[in-house]
Amino acid sequence: MPKTVNHDERRKDLADAVLAIIARTGINGVTVRAVAQEAGWSTGVLTHYFGNRHEMLLGALRRAAAVTGRRQSELVKRSQTDAVTTLETILEEVLPLDAERLALTRIFLFFYAEAAAEDAVRQEIAGYLANWRRFVQEVVRRAQEEGALHRSHDPVAAADALVALTDGLAVHALFDDRLLSEMRAESPVPGWVDVFRAPAARTAPLT
Amino acid sequence: MPKTVNHDERRKDLADAVLAIIARTGINGVTVRAVAQEAGWSTGVLTHYFGNRHEMLLGALRRAAAVTGRRQSELVKRSQTDAVTTLETILEEVLPLDAERLALTRIFLFFYAEAAAEDAVRQEIAGYLANWRRFVQEVVRRAQEEGALHRSHDPVAAADALVALTDGLAVHALFDDRLLSEMRAESPVPGWVDVFRAPAARTAPLT
Repeated sequence: MPKTVNHDERRKDLADAVLAIIARTGINGVTVRAVAQEAGWSTGVLTHYFGNRHEMLLGALRRAAAVTGRRQSELVKRSQTDAVTTLETILEEVLPLDAERLALTRIFLFFYAEAAAEDAVRQEIAGYLANWRRFVQEVVRRAQEEGALHRSHDPVAAADALVALTDGLAVHALFDDRLLSEMRAESPVPGWVDVFRAPAARTAPLT
Repeated sequence: MPKTVNHDERRKDLADAVLAIIARTGINGVTVRAVAQEAGWSTGVLTHYFGNRHEMLLGALRRAAAVTGRRQSELVKRSQTDAVTTLETILEEVLPLDAERLALTRIFLFFYAEAAAEDAVRQEIAGYLANWRRFVQEVVRRAQEEGALHRSHDPVAAADALVALTDGLAVHALFDDRLLSEMRAESPVPGWVDVFRAPAARTAPLT
């Protein structure tokens, strides 16, 4: 009987192997040979799925974005906890608090630089960021309805700021061990979210 | 009489030509030929100062960092205005509110991606960010002494957050025309700074 190959699963496994290498050694560690070794496959099989190094990195970006997006979406849908806790968890999904999220920050930063120069990548990155903001907006609105966050804040502006702050700190932590160890010792997110418990200082706070 | 050539001035002029191209067309527009044309010099003279494209980009990064750092330093030293206004101006120096600052965001993002992979670049980028945070810390302290910002905020934590927020939003605006046009219509910075007028919500707010 011929062996059944699930190509989608293989692509996912390879993308996960790429992300594991990125978590351990960074983007520079990603080579066709290293990924083949990590996945336990031949380079010949690997190049059937990803033609070159850049395609492997793009596969890893899409895998990381899909996994994170699905987690955030499930957090928003389930809402087993209060909205503020959900909001904090959604933001912490994107801080490099462990190896998996460190890989996420690194692969996104790699493609941010490309997105500034290549329009197709720019559209893709803009889409991921827009999704992330929409999740944050929805949970901010819910927290306002629950009375936990103050209604004077514009949810769109709050999401723009919270997403920029989280992403900015995630990237800065790649360059600064003090920032990384401080955020791993204690998440900065609850302190940020607390800002939105008080009334807005101006008509358009944090925007 | 032999012509006197000020080599430092020439390097600055070339770096400014690179930044002008980045402002207009982005990093991809930077080629030896395009920079020679922008500066009005021969490619031969240009390659005497910058051996290749990457060296030109690095020269542009250092020029942009020096100009911005000097401006921020002068703002901190002069302090002709109240500290909150100085703080707002220091942060706005780094938002892509005009073509010059757009080039700054683009050249920094290009080297952020490199800094995640190359240790020498990482050290350099970490140094620029640390300087920026120190300026912000100093002005936050001054604003607290003036009674404009609340003393319950840790200036180090406030600077970490304000710098991450500013940088994160600057980068996101590269991918999102709504964010860019909104920040150009009205600076978001005063709203962020207002957060620090109120007492800290927790012992370690915004960190």
